[in-house]
Amino acid sequence: MLTNPRSDRVKAVRALSRRSVRSRTGEFLAEGPQAVREAVTFRPELVRDVYVTPEAGERHAGIVEAARAASVWVHEVSPEVLAAMCDTESPQGVAAVCRVLDLPLDSVLADLPTDAIVCVLTNVRDPGNAGTVIRGADAAGADAVLVSDASVDVYNSKVVRSTVGSLWHLPLSIGASVPEILSALRDRGVRLLAADGAGTTLLHDADLSGPHAWVMGNEAWGLPQEVRDACDDVVRVPIHGHAESLNLAMAATICLYASAEARRTSR
Amino acid sequence: MLTNPRSDRVKAVRALSRRSVRSRTGEFLAEGPQAVREAVTFRPELVRDVYVTPEAGERHAGIVEAARAASVWVHEVSPEVLAAMCDTESPQGVAAVCRVLDLPLDSVLADLPTDAIVCVLTNVRDPGNAGTVIRGADAAGADAVLVSDASVDVYNSKVVRSTVGSLWHLPLSIGASVPEILSALRDRGVRLLAADGAGTTLLHDADLSGPHAWVMGNEAWGLPQEVRDACDDVVRVPIHGHAESLNLAMAATICLYASAEARRTSR
Repeated sequence: MLTNPRSDRVKAVRALSRRSVRSRTGEFLAEGPQAVREAVTFRPELVRDVYVTPEAGERHAGIVEAARAASVWVHEVSPEVLAAMCDTESPQGVAAVCRVLDLPLDSVLADLPTDAIVCVLTNVRDPGNAGTVIRGADAAGADAVLVSDASVDVYNSKVVRSTVGSLWHLPLSIGASVPEILSALRDRGVRLLAADGAGTTLLHDADLSGPHAWVMGNEAWGLPQEVRDACDDVVRVPIHGHAESLNLAMAATICLYASAEARRTSR
Repeated sequence: MLTNPRSDRVKAVRALSRRSVRSRTGEFLAEGPQAVREAVTFRPELVRDVYVTPEAGERHAGIVEAARAASVWVHEVSPEVLAAMCDTESPQGVAAVCRVLDLPLDSVLADLPTDAIVCVLTNVRDPGNAGTVIRGADAAGADAVLVSDASVDVYNSKVVRSTVGSLWHLPLSIGASVPEILSALRDRGVRLLAADGAGTTLLHDADLSGPHAWVMGNEAWGLPQEVRDACDDVVRVPIHGHAESLNLAMAATICLYASAEARRTSR
């Protein structure tokens, strides 16, 4: 059992809370049972080490079994060591060092189905929003999430936590610029729908019949004019009451579910 | 200008961060420009005092004008006084002491339209979730929000903040027990739809044609069996991908928007 919270190994894991270290090593830390369970279940080949306290090892025996079955190293650690490794205040006794899982833009696009639903995050800065949109995209059955270069790092612990495991469920590409993403989608025949409160097309009037991508803007300032202009349509979720707006995660989830419903009825 | 952060008035305002004081006085504090703007715009008769720093008074001149036009007292305060009054770390220079705005259950139900959409929150504990659901209900055009007795206090500063002003937009009743709420709705001919991941009816198959209420459970454990049994149907939002679930606010907003869409197409 690892018991020294000041050991080099603990320091190396803890250093993954810094974006620069994640970039250099190509690794990040998944904290908490839900994230670790999804990682070892869906992408075990990307999990390098699982760290678990004795107590959590008993409570989450399934995670430990799944990890061992996939030949992932499982290390028993003291609660102090786990706390020293993690960014989260209460990691619930388990964490895993994982390889990053994003793919080049072209390879994600090459694998899209003919009735693809894609979610594009541009300039999204709040970790909770980014993670919740990824979770919503997963739930709605989206085929890919593309995150532009000026957005929050998806391997930030708060993003990882708020995806509640969805990070490991669907193809993800990060780091391309917004123009690159839009033009690559257009080249593949994917219709571009800007989701914006300034849109003139209401969601229920939008054409969701073919492959399409929802382009979401920054949580505070929305999408800049040039991005809206580059899209095929600018769509807004109707506000029926007096609310000023919906938040980004809610708007994205409603749009993605409208796409899922259109796909369900056409299949 | 009020400049003494230790004055009795400041202490009395600050005390509104305690639920017991809010209950006794029937008052709560709205913090930040968005909440104060909606309060003085939509329910000025419920606003007792607006407190504003000189700098915020200039930046949000519209709020100050609207308050004065509605004969609300506006007090200039130093930033230190405002900080001492508020629960929020950065109240952005403005706050207002407001009368609580909930109504008795019977009077909310008496005013429902014949194609009512109602949102019922039972045992919701997280302030951010409760506030975001109220915001979503407002955006979807719901006619009332009913919050059961065992839920978070809607006048908690975090709930108020996360409603982003929607608290003042739609009829609200709080404090009745879940059985009371369900039986009062049933007596009014409102169909009861439990929203729960354990539901056998998928959202797109649910009957949303008449007046109906979405009954939402606790964020962690959902709805207890007896509440599901007391409803006319148990409905789940389909999960198309591998996500384990949607969070409460997302599920509620998707259900409420499905209701709004059903109402739009039938009107």
